[in-house]
Amino acid sequence: MSEPTSFLLPSDRIPKAWYNLNADMPEPIPPPLHPATRLPAGPDDLTAIFPENLVMQEVTPERWVEIPDPVREVLALWRPTPLLRAVRLERHLQTPAQIYYKYEGVSPGGSHKPNTAVAQAYYNKIAGTKRLATETGAGQWGSSLALACSLFGLECRVYMVKVSFEQKPYRKLMMQTWGAEVFASPSDQTEFGRRVREQDPECAGSLGIAISEAIEDTVKTPGTKYSLGSVLNHVILHQTVIGLEALEQMEMAGPEPDIIIGCVGGGSNFAGLAFPFVEKKLAGKASYKIVAVEPTACPSMTRGDLRYDFGDTAGMTPLMMMKTLGHEFMPPPIHAGGLRYHGMAPMVSHAHKLGLIDAVAVPQTHVFDSAVTFARTEGIVPAPESAHAVAVAMDEAIAAREAGQKKVILFGLSGHGMLDLTSYENFLAGRLQDV
Amino acid sequence: MSEPTSFLLPSDRIPKAWYNLNADMPEPIPPPLHPATRLPAGPDDLTAIFPENLVMQEVTPERWVEIPDPVREVLALWRPTPLLRAVRLERHLQTPAQIYYKYEGVSPGGSHKPNTAVAQAYYNKIAGTKRLATETGAGQWGSSLALACSLFGLECRVYMVKVSFEQKPYRKLMMQTWGAEVFASPSDQTEFGRRVREQDPECAGSLGIAISEAIEDTVKTPGTKYSLGSVLNHVILHQTVIGLEALEQMEMAGPEPDIIIGCVGGGSNFAGLAFPFVEKKLAGKASYKIVAVEPTACPSMTRGDLRYDFGDTAGMTPLMMMKTLGHEFMPPPIHAGGLRYHGMAPMVSHAHKLGLIDAVAVPQTHVFDSAVTFARTEGIVPAPESAHAVAVAMDEAIAAREAGQKKVILFGLSGHGMLDLTSYENFLAGRLQDV
Repeated sequence: MSEPTSFLLPSDRIPKAWYNLNADMPEPIPPPLHPATRLPAGPDDLTAIFPENLVMQEVTPERWVEIPDPVREVLALWRPTPLLRAVRLERHLQTPAQIYYKYEGVSPGGSHKPNTAVAQAYYNKIAGTKRLATETGAGQWGSSLALACSLFGLECRVYMVKVSFEQKPYRKLMMQTWGAEVFASPSDQTEFGRRVREQDPECAGSLGIAISEAIEDTVKTPGTKYSLGSVLNHVILHQTVIGLEALEQMEMAGPEPDIIIGCVGGGSNFAGLAFPFVEKKLAGKASYKIVAVEPTACPSMTRGDLRYDFGDTAGMTPLMMMKTLGHEFMPPPIHAGGLRYHGMAPMVSHAHKLGLIDAVAVPQTHVFDSAVTFARTEGIVPAPESAHAVAVAMDEAIAAREAGQKKVILFGLSGHGMLDLTSYENFLAGRLQDV
Repeated sequence: MSEPTSFLLPSDRIPKAWYNLNADMPEPIPPPLHPATRLPAGPDDLTAIFPENLVMQEVTPERWVEIPDPVREVLALWRPTPLLRAVRLERHLQTPAQIYYKYEGVSPGGSHKPNTAVAQAYYNKIAGTKRLATETGAGQWGSSLALACSLFGLECRVYMVKVSFEQKPYRKLMMQTWGAEVFASPSDQTEFGRRVREQDPECAGSLGIAISEAIEDTVKTPGTKYSLGSVLNHVILHQTVIGLEALEQMEMAGPEPDIIIGCVGGGSNFAGLAFPFVEKKLAGKASYKIVAVEPTACPSMTRGDLRYDFGDTAGMTPLMMMKTLGHEFMPPPIHAGGLRYHGMAPMVSHAHKLGLIDAVAVPQTHVFDSAVTFARTEGIVPAPESAHAVAVAMDEAIAAREAGQKKVILFGLSGHGMLDLTSYENFLAGRLQDV
């Protein structure tokens, strides 16, 4: 072949430590506040629902956190993931830009989510947890946690937003195949769920209700802890394997990237790819443009305020300093369910405030239009969430063509869209609208 | 980590040539016969529906056939695929056996099928073909050809068995996302389809009818050729990348395998993994037990006769010397749709006759039971077809435990089951029966 188009690492190059940007932030990140006292929340405030080892990771000042061998052994199922050059897309766009993408869809769950699910299941296992409870919207997170629990011998209980439970049977079936118990939320399993059902028997559910059910389940069931798939510092920490591998793979490929792009919902996928590059930027070793892409329908980064807000709708979590649309904001029903979150991870919000990263919002028809072009030139059908990064990468490649610039673009393709094909059907049939 | 569990090759180790077992068969394979004259069919009899370059590959006596660079460039999207050691499954089974598997589910289509689809699309493209027609049952093949056609700029027309078209919308949507035209067969697009619909407006379709429609479409539409996803020699040739990589990866892992296992429908997945090992066996370099696994519901290898038979139900194709249940055999509706074929690839049938490979049939409840154990220990949810190999690999590992033998088992995991989860649902609910 004339030039290599894929950059693969051997299995002994799975990172041995996670990178913690909090150790390098030019200015410390504001602490979370207790929801009742509004005083800084300490580790003790979190151990009711998380095991102590993960709480310590949440607040650690260490730059590097060693990845335990049993976690690396499971990550070896699909890591290191490929870094690919989109040569057919480059030709199609007739751009002088080089487009690279880091592909997380090769995991058993089809996305980046298992990177943290596996770590969280492991730490809970060694802390003596018997059972994990969580919520899930479209099912990507719930299925990843179900997978991880089955590999480490933990029970798993998932509260799945009712409308998705009914409309997205495949992800529910994945969870059940991996042995998890899945309930449509609001459920009859919790006091809160029963109360909601009494008040509105037809209630379609929401992520806020599902979180409340999972937390109630956690505090009331002995041996149970709670698990979250994004937003928190330790989740972001676990996702940095993406960027650490990508750094090494871009060195194999040759050129330094000019632009690094990732989609953001809660922030962990974007941060996982971007933060190891932010480290190089902070160390003065490179000057990247780093772009977080969100849907115009849920624009926490580009339209939200930076202020203390709750992580959930019901206001039960600690208050976090984050870019937020307000915890009662209800995003319109768009096809990238994983990006429908009112706030943004405190670490991502803080990096944005400090000017280390940029943000942009794109409408979903542009996203799907780009995704179809990508699928037809590169072969992989992107998840609707990941397609937000695809769209901006293509926009940048077209801008490079128009400016006659040989830009090097790297984006994160966080998952495949095999279980999201009805969204593509709606787009191809002209039924998708911007909201 | 104590011992490596994954064996990954760099991108420059994608094989540079396909291996052709016909060059090494101890006794030549009987030629196909013309359906009308019953005389040996020559290349000319095939060029009506296939391009000349693929016809020459079908009959080539060469041992090694070079893989063109543009094909390797596309294969680099997902190849080399991982070889993994199933350490968690070994622990679960408490077996002294080592279990390795070659995983083809990382392709954009989720199975091994794109290996040949890409090659066929390329050869058609350089031969001047504008459009490919094919049939598909459950959709695995049709979606792989749609993918390949989109990458090489060919139009693609797929006749999809009507019952699958209606019951398996996701694979239809994959084809449409990749730009293919998909029609439920029997369709109104061909004379044959219209005739079937007149006679039986409720006809649910069959692979035989869909083949007849695709071939009629091919011969009647200028610039169109026909494409088949298994059975033929050139298809098997393209699939040998699986076994060639696996040979190298088993050398990385260390031990020689004692047993090599693959599932068989038309035969190309099994042959792709097994034939490079058969070469070593024929050269006296190793003595493997090589096992083809089929469903008891469609037992062409274990219960069929070795005789000349048609490749399709309607009797339009050349007669091939193969293990067959008779071209009018209608397999019962089992959940591994890709293994419901009345015959077996002539090369696989011939290797079986010569004693180079063994065959075994397994019932589907045993298959799904094994698949669920695999999913819950190894993480990957196997396609129902691939799960046939999982079941026999586990049987062998249990036998090794009972005999106290340190066997080394290698099996092919030809695809993931993310679009087959309703079959798992049926199994978990106790609704699956052996037929």
